[in-house]
Amino acid sequence: MTGTDGTEVAVAGAVASADGVAVHAPSDKYSIALAARRRSYGPNTSLSYEQPLMIIRGDGTYLFDEHGVSYLDCVNNVSHLGHSNTEVVAAISAQLRKLNTNSRYLHPDLPRYTEMLLATLNTTTTTTNNNNNSCNTTCSSNNSTYSNKKSSTNCTRHNSTPEGCSSNSDSNKGACGSSSCSSTKANTLQNLEVLYLVCSGSEANDLALRLISVARPGATHVAVMGGAYHGHTSALIQLSPYKFWGTGGGGRQPHVHVVPCPDPYRGENLDGRAAARAVLAAAERCGGRLGGFFCESILSCGGQVVLPPGYLKVISERPRVGRDLYDELRAARVVLVADEVQCGFGRCGEAFWGFQTQPGVAPDIVTMGKPIGNGYPLAALATTRELAAAFAAPGMEYFNTYGGSTAAVAAGLAVLCILQRDGLQQHAQRVGSYLLYGLRQLLQTHEVVGDVRGLGLFLGIEIVRDKASKRHAPATARWIKERMKARRVLISTDGPYDNVIKIKPPMVFGIREADMLLREFREVLEQELTADVRQKLRRREDELWTSVYGPRQAKYRENERQLFQGGLSPQARL
Amino acid sequence: MTGTDGTEVAVAGAVASADGVAVHAPSDKYSIALAARRRSYGPNTSLSYEQPLMIIRGDGTYLFDEHGVSYLDCVNNVSHLGHSNTEVVAAISAQLRKLNTNSRYLHPDLPRYTEMLLATLNTTTTTTNNNNNSCNTTCSSNNSTYSNKKSSTNCTRHNSTPEGCSSNSDSNKGACGSSSCSSTKANTLQNLEVLYLVCSGSEANDLALRLISVARPGATHVAVMGGAYHGHTSALIQLSPYKFWGTGGGGRQPHVHVVPCPDPYRGENLDGRAAARAVLAAAERCGGRLGGFFCESILSCGGQVVLPPGYLKVISERPRVGRDLYDELRAARVVLVADEVQCGFGRCGEAFWGFQTQPGVAPDIVTMGKPIGNGYPLAALATTRELAAAFAAPGMEYFNTYGGSTAAVAAGLAVLCILQRDGLQQHAQRVGSYLLYGLRQLLQTHEVVGDVRGLGLFLGIEIVRDKASKRHAPATARWIKERMKARRVLISTDGPYDNVIKIKPPMVFGIREADMLLREFREVLEQELTADVRQKLRRREDELWTSVYGPRQAKYRENERQLFQGGLSPQARL
Repeated sequence: MTGTDGTEVAVAGAVASADGVAVHAPSDKYSIALAARRRSYGPNTSLSYEQPLMIIRGDGTYLFDEHGVSYLDCVNNVSHLGHSNTEVVAAISAQLRKLNTNSRYLHPDLPRYTEMLLATLNTTTTTTNNNNNSCNTTCSSNNSTYSNKKSSTNCTRHNSTPEGCSSNSDSNKGACGSSSCSSTKANTLQNLEVLYLVCSGSEANDLALRLISVARPGATHVAVMGGAYHGHTSALIQLSPYKFWGTGGGGRQPHVHVVPCPDPYRGENLDGRAAARAVLAAAERCGGRLGGFFCESILSCGGQVVLPPGYLKVISERPRVGRDLYDELRAARVVLVADEVQCGFGRCGEAFWGFQTQPGVAPDIVTMGKPIGNGYPLAALATTRELAAAFAAPGMEYFNTYGGSTAAVAAGLAVLCILQRDGLQQHAQRVGSYLLYGLRQLLQTHEVVGDVRGLGLFLGIEIVRDKASKRHAPATARWIKERMKARRVLISTDGPYDNVIKIKPPMVFGIREADMLLREFREVLEQELTADVRQKLRRREDELWTSVYGPRQAKYRENERQLFQGGLSPQARL
Repeated sequence: MTGTDGTEVAVAGAVASADGVAVHAPSDKYSIALAARRRSYGPNTSLSYEQPLMIIRGDGTYLFDEHGVSYLDCVNNVSHLGHSNTEVVAAISAQLRKLNTNSRYLHPDLPRYTEMLLATLNTTTTTTNNNNNSCNTTCSSNNSTYSNKKSSTNCTRHNSTPEGCSSNSDSNKGACGSSSCSSTKANTLQNLEVLYLVCSGSEANDLALRLISVARPGATHVAVMGGAYHGHTSALIQLSPYKFWGTGGGGRQPHVHVVPCPDPYRGENLDGRAAARAVLAAAERCGGRLGGFFCESILSCGGQVVLPPGYLKVISERPRVGRDLYDELRAARVVLVADEVQCGFGRCGEAFWGFQTQPGVAPDIVTMGKPIGNGYPLAALATTRELAAAFAAPGMEYFNTYGGSTAAVAAGLAVLCILQRDGLQQHAQRVGSYLLYGLRQLLQTHEVVGDVRGLGLFLGIEIVRDKASKRHAPATARWIKERMKARRVLISTDGPYDNVIKIKPPMVFGIREADMLLREFREVLEQELTADVRQKLRRREDELWTSVYGPRQAKYRENERQLFQGGLSPQARL
């Protein structure tokens, strides 16, 4: 079978897979399900891989198809504690048996969860070891308690290392108050003291937009990062260059301004302050005013991009060097939204939240989703008391049928307690560092591996034509994805040019799994990516660049030109 | 304690309740939870009742507070099969233990559910008894099977009674093909053959809006019904007069046109065709074009309003009398959306979907939510193959993290199978008719009961000052709600004037529960609504009318004037 990239694609049932194990032919059940799905389910929903997988079981960081064949899952960040986590399932099931209703009735677990989740976001001015037990106290619900298996690493790290803490282990304590560090640190950050529970990351970001529209009346313009995706609602598609400049996209709306995404690999767009000034000016030129700025703390759909140090906020004591985005926008009363839907909940390893890896960054709103309920639909928005009050002031009720329902809260509580108890943030840091190191070894020897980046278990491998040109190579990235799947390792591609392999596995992903991923990835590059295959892929890259990615890059480039060099009016649609 | 309506409100712990049973004082747990919630949870989320209830358990159509006191739940339509339904809980739990992942992998239950759900929406041209077993075949998932307890009433009824069927029982068969009716009927209806699964009713309606914007490019205007609520996203708040003309609302946006809601009780706005022509003209006067029309099949937040016969579609053979909204709008290529989020899934009794109670009504899109998963977050959009193809044509993927996930599908399958197996639609018709009859008895004898209306277990009681004036009486409605709660019966109020008591209990609500509701309601009216209380309430009505409802009514009236009498330009904001 020839895949859409012009190269041979292994078809289950037709060939032996690369690791020599026979591949099963699709079952009747598979064929029936595939036909029925194509007949009756949304035609623009997608199935991964040329030959989709029928997955019927999950366990930890493995998925199993209908033949019982296991796949190493390196991509499903929603199953944060692992697929089919026994304790989370038990917590949800117990709550479903007891009660699952909405938040218009009082329930003890809702505020318990709310306060526990908010505690992970905020620094405290003093931290002492007087409240050692608070973690035990909060790590329980109406139905369940989560005993401390690992007492020394059961708490989340705070926004930044307290000044009095020097060792790594100290920096990993604090959120539950069980740190023995008693340093005093001025809290210069926003206090995110109010939570809203909703159903999905999209609902959370859409709510952020509503909140901004009420709190900043008249400031209807919004700035977002190039390549960003913030959700699937009508309003959020307009805030997602990944969509509106992607396939089938309708282009940028006049009220949306796109901050060119920093590209540290190519040394482009690294100045946050200049970007802030440019979008403020662009809004003004359109006769508008910027009300909000949405930014993922690590850009996921943007291509697993780690923002350069100081991009959002410079905290050096030295005179600033003009790279500080947050201050510029805050001075203009722009509401700063950190979208943590993909990267939050300890995934970044060195901090519980992505924004906390960037010292001094203090968003006004944090949105959360995906991993929050290990797959149970739940998401959240945290904000300051001031903004919540402004949103509430006109008197319109906010109601969300499933947001804050008792079962959703049970799921959220279980995830948060287990995450902290089992030190999974620290685990992500450890395994992520090991994996990053291993992947970076490949940088030396493989021409198509352009960059390896990320934090914790949120990693990206940028696939390029060659190291000199750094040209995006989406066909090669896609080919690698398919070859890895044939080796029973599931990865995915992302970025505006679909050339960044993303790795964001369940957090229980361990050293053994990292070794498997590294081994298979290396073998694909060394044994399968032959000169012949590369030649075919290069032709495919040329075709794709002409038809898809070149025109797309032209839009991003034109946007930069308009912003920074005073080109066409920003009202001109792209 | 004096409530906000100026009348005495029973406070738990302070007085004996109306039925003579001592009321418990709030527990410490209650006080702690209430304080924590007020401190940390969205200040504009609401808790029902003057003294909120702490509910910790649910069973069938009863809820239980922290003291074990039971409340008859007449309002939570989300728990469609009853709170804590054992089989639904088991189905969700079993799936969670096995796998809960997204729809980018193939899973046999997704298309199984999709096709089963779509089958409830579409008529077939011929129905014979040859396929008696299809219900048994589809009523199973990968994990569970649902045996036929009630073989004769296990299927849903179709859009309209087949011509060959005359008896009531025949009309309740068909969707699964097990009807013995073999009539042939021309299928003049749309075929809703494609489904999208999402997370919430809001996501479903927001997706409808996206679909319309792609399928009808440039037709950016939308018509909605007065009093309607379609969801909480930024875009849907703009489509919800209940919100934008309600407390804290920002007014109507220029691209939104409001069809005055029919008020059969007062004999107002009963002409659907005139309304259709008016909104088409209004859009045109604004330089726009109508792309979509959203209408709940029974208006819930609009005040439990049953559309008058023929309002959407006249099917009489006689010459039409100018009351036909659907044809007018369809001729202008307006996409017709039936919002079934509140009233679907058999609640209306005489049909599985609300729109199917209106002969000939054939929406282009049906959105569903709330009851679909018995509380598990799930919702759906069904549409025609043509519209789905138009939406997919530009090539933009639609992805929803939790929509169509394996656990959500397990919940949906369980609900649909049990609903059909247990004949709950027919049960709703039976109990609903009984309840409606009982409530209508009260019309004769009670001055404040202005109207009693509804279908199946979707009922409304309009509370008025007096029968002659028919003036809305929100303070009295609210007082009744609080007094019913003291008697351990939970009801709620709705409508743009908050004066309609809504009754939409779990579908397992039976004759016994109906009797309890009727008895307590009668006693509140006969024993508690004394001349003295009425006098106090009348003063409160006057205050509320002046401060809140009078100005609100003025907006609705002005909208009517603009639409029908060529008043101010529709561009003038209301």
